[in-house]
Amino acid sequence: MPPTYDVVIAGGGVAGLAAAWRTVRRGLSVAVADPAPGGGATHASAGMLAPVSEVTYTEEPLLRLGLASLAAWPGFRAELEDESGVELDYRTEGTLEVARGADDMAYLDDLAAFERTLGLRVERLTGRECRSFEPMLAPSVRGGLLARDDAWVNPRRVVRALLTAFEKAGGTLVAGRVSGIDASATGGPSVRLTSGEAVAAGQVVVAAGSWSASLLPGLPVRPVKGEILRLRGPEGFLTRCVRGLVHGSPAYLVPRGDGEITLGATVQELGYDARVTAGGVYELLRDARELVPGITELELAETTVGFRPGTPDNLPLIGPAGPPGVFAATGHGRNGVLLSPITADAVAALLTGDEPPPVTGACDPGRFSE
Amino acid sequence: MPPTYDVVIAGGGVAGLAAAWRTVRRGLSVAVADPAPGGGATHASAGMLAPVSEVTYTEEPLLRLGLASLAAWPGFRAELEDESGVELDYRTEGTLEVARGADDMAYLDDLAAFERTLGLRVERLTGRECRSFEPMLAPSVRGGLLARDDAWVNPRRVVRALLTAFEKAGGTLVAGRVSGIDASATGGPSVRLTSGEAVAAGQVVVAAGSWSASLLPGLPVRPVKGEILRLRGPEGFLTRCVRGLVHGSPAYLVPRGDGEITLGATVQELGYDARVTAGGVYELLRDARELVPGITELELAETTVGFRPGTPDNLPLIGPAGPPGVFAATGHGRNGVLLSPITADAVAALLTGDEPPPVTGACDPGRFSE
Repeated sequence: MPPTYDVVIAGGGVAGLAAAWRTVRRGLSVAVADPAPGGGATHASAGMLAPVSEVTYTEEPLLRLGLASLAAWPGFRAELEDESGVELDYRTEGTLEVARGADDMAYLDDLAAFERTLGLRVERLTGRECRSFEPMLAPSVRGGLLARDDAWVNPRRVVRALLTAFEKAGGTLVAGRVSGIDASATGGPSVRLTSGEAVAAGQVVVAAGSWSASLLPGLPVRPVKGEILRLRGPEGFLTRCVRGLVHGSPAYLVPRGDGEITLGATVQELGYDARVTAGGVYELLRDARELVPGITELELAETTVGFRPGTPDNLPLIGPAGPPGVFAATGHGRNGVLLSPITADAVAALLTGDEPPPVTGACDPGRFSE
Repeated sequence: MPPTYDVVIAGGGVAGLAAAWRTVRRGLSVAVADPAPGGGATHASAGMLAPVSEVTYTEEPLLRLGLASLAAWPGFRAELEDESGVELDYRTEGTLEVARGADDMAYLDDLAAFERTLGLRVERLTGRECRSFEPMLAPSVRGGLLARDDAWVNPRRVVRALLTAFEKAGGTLVAGRVSGIDASATGGPSVRLTSGEAVAAGQVVVAAGSWSASLLPGLPVRPVKGEILRLRGPEGFLTRCVRGLVHGSPAYLVPRGDGEITLGATVQELGYDARVTAGGVYELLRDARELVPGITELELAETTVGFRPGTPDNLPLIGPAGPPGVFAATGHGRNGVLLSPITADAVAALLTGDEPPPVTGACDPGRFSE
C-alpha cells in the first residue's frame, strides 16, 4: 500500500510549518498534524530576531546558526508574504539595549565590541540619545546600544501566513495530534493519531516542540516554562524593541504595529506547569516598569504560558532521529522564530536527499550519544 | 390596565437581588430586570463584612449602618442558605490586620481602642502571634490586630443564592436591561427595556449601581473604578482575611474555602475605563507580596474590573427618588455586600408602606438637594 503522504510532520508550530511549506514547494506531498497549529511555544513567543542578544559568548555554534537564519529572514519573509498575502509585521527598526548603571554600561560596551567583530552594526548612545529615540524610556537609563540589524516579527502572523502558504501550495493540515510513530518493513513509517487513525508516510518529521520526546523516546528535549505578557497601548508608544538587564535578568518589550507590546519573559524549569503565576506576572511588570515606567497606564491584555523546547547545549535537534525515515526538528529553545528559515531549509533538504546548510551540522540529534 | 408586577427592580446586583428577595417574601409580585445578574460591582467584590476597617473615623453614619448590617448578616445568611440550598462560604475566623512598622502599629492601636468603644472584640498580637495564626505572613510583620467579629462571604455565591431563593419564592427574572422609567397618570410607573418592551409596575426600584444616574438623572452616583485579582492556591494557604497598609494604601487578601484568594483593590476615579491595567495588577501583586510573600507561587486566575457606585458622602442612596413610586437602592460604594441585608430590609419596608430601619434614615437620596 503506498503511503498517503510523502511526508507527515508531527507538530504545527513555527518550525514544523516552515519546514512543511518549504518541503511542499519542492514537490513532495506533505501533511502537518496538529489539533491547534501555532498554539504551543510559538503562541507565547515574542518573535525577536536578535541572535546576538539572545545567546552567551560561549555558545558560538548557536550564534552562527542564529546569524545564518537572521540573514535568511528577509528572503523568507518576502516569499512568505508574497505567497500567503499575510503581512507579518516584520520590523527592522532595531533593538535598543539600555543600561541603568555603570556595570550595565560596561557589559554593553563589551557586547558592542563583540557584535562589531561579527560585522553587525551597533551604535553606542548616551542616555539622552536613548530617550530621543524612545521618549518613554525611564530617566534612569544612562546609555545604551542601538543594534540596527536586529529585527522582529509577529509570530502569530507568521503562523497564519505559513498555514495559508502551505495549503495554497497543496499541503494538507490534519487536525489531530500524533500519539506515536510506527516503523514498517515497507514504505517508511506511519503515524498514529490520538483519534486512533493511522496515516502512512514516506518520511516523518517530529516537530512537536517540548513534547517531541514522547514521540521519540530518549530525545534530549525538555520543557522550559516561560510566562509572557501582552499589553495594549497607543500605536507608537515604543518604536523599537527595548531590552535591558533588571534585577539581574533580561527584560524586553517588543512593540507591534497595532499598539500591542509583548513583555517577556520568565525562564523556569518546572516541567509542564501551565499556571500563570502571581510571581511571574509581578516580576515581568516590575522589570518592564523600571525600563519604561509608562507601561503602568497600558492595558494588560494577555497573560500566556509557553514551554520552550530546551536541549542540553541549547542547540536545536535537526536531522535523522529514531527509526529510518524519521527526522527531528525541535529543541529550538528561545529561538524558534529566529531559526525557522534555516530549520526549514535543512529539513526540506534532508527530506529530498539534498545537503542541508553546513551550519546546521551542529544540530545532529545524535550528537549526545556519540 | 393593571401593572404586570407590583414591583420592578432595575438591576440584579447584590443590593437589588437582596431587596427583591425580601420583598417577594412579603407577598408582592416582583420582577428583577438584568441581562447578567451579579455581573457588575458584585462580580468584582471581595465580600468582606468588616465595617470598621472599611470606613474612616469621621464617617459615623456609614459606620452605624455597617454595624447594623453586620449584625443582620447571620440571620440573613441562615435564611438565605436555608431557602436557596446554596452554601455562601460565609466565614467568621476574623480579620488579621497587620503592621510592618512602628507607625503602622500605632495606627492599629488607635483603631483597636476605637473598635472596643463600639463593643467589638479586638486582640492585640505580636508579630510571632500573627505568624502563629497565619504562617504565610511576611517576617517583616511586627504585630497586628485580630478582629474576631469580622466576617466575609463569597459574593458570587450570594448572588447565586439570592437568584435561587428569589425565584423559588415566586419572583421573576427578566433578562433585559432597563433603559428608562416612565411616569404614568394611573397605576404607577413603567420601565422600558433596551429591547423596546415596556413593563408596567406598581413601584420601581433603581438598583443599577454606578449606572443608576442614567435612569434617575441627577442622582449623585458615579463609577469608582476598582481592579481586583483572584489567585488560586492550596486550601488553607490563609485561614483569615489579612489586611495591611502597604505604600500608604490598604491591601487585603480574602481566602475562600476552595483555595481562591481575592486580592484587592485599586480605587480610581476614571469613569467607565474597563481596562485591566499593567499598573493596577502590578500594585496589587506588589502590595500583597509584601504582606504574604508566598503568593508569588500561586496561580493568577482572574483579573477583574468593577465600578463601585460612589456618592459624595460615601453613604448609599436608599429611598424615594424621582417620580412617585420610584425608589433608589444604590450608591453602596465599597460596601454593597456588607450593606445588602439592611438595604433589603429598608427597601422591602418602603415598598410595603412600613417604616424602614431608623439607621437607614441617613440614606435619603434627597439629602444633597436640601
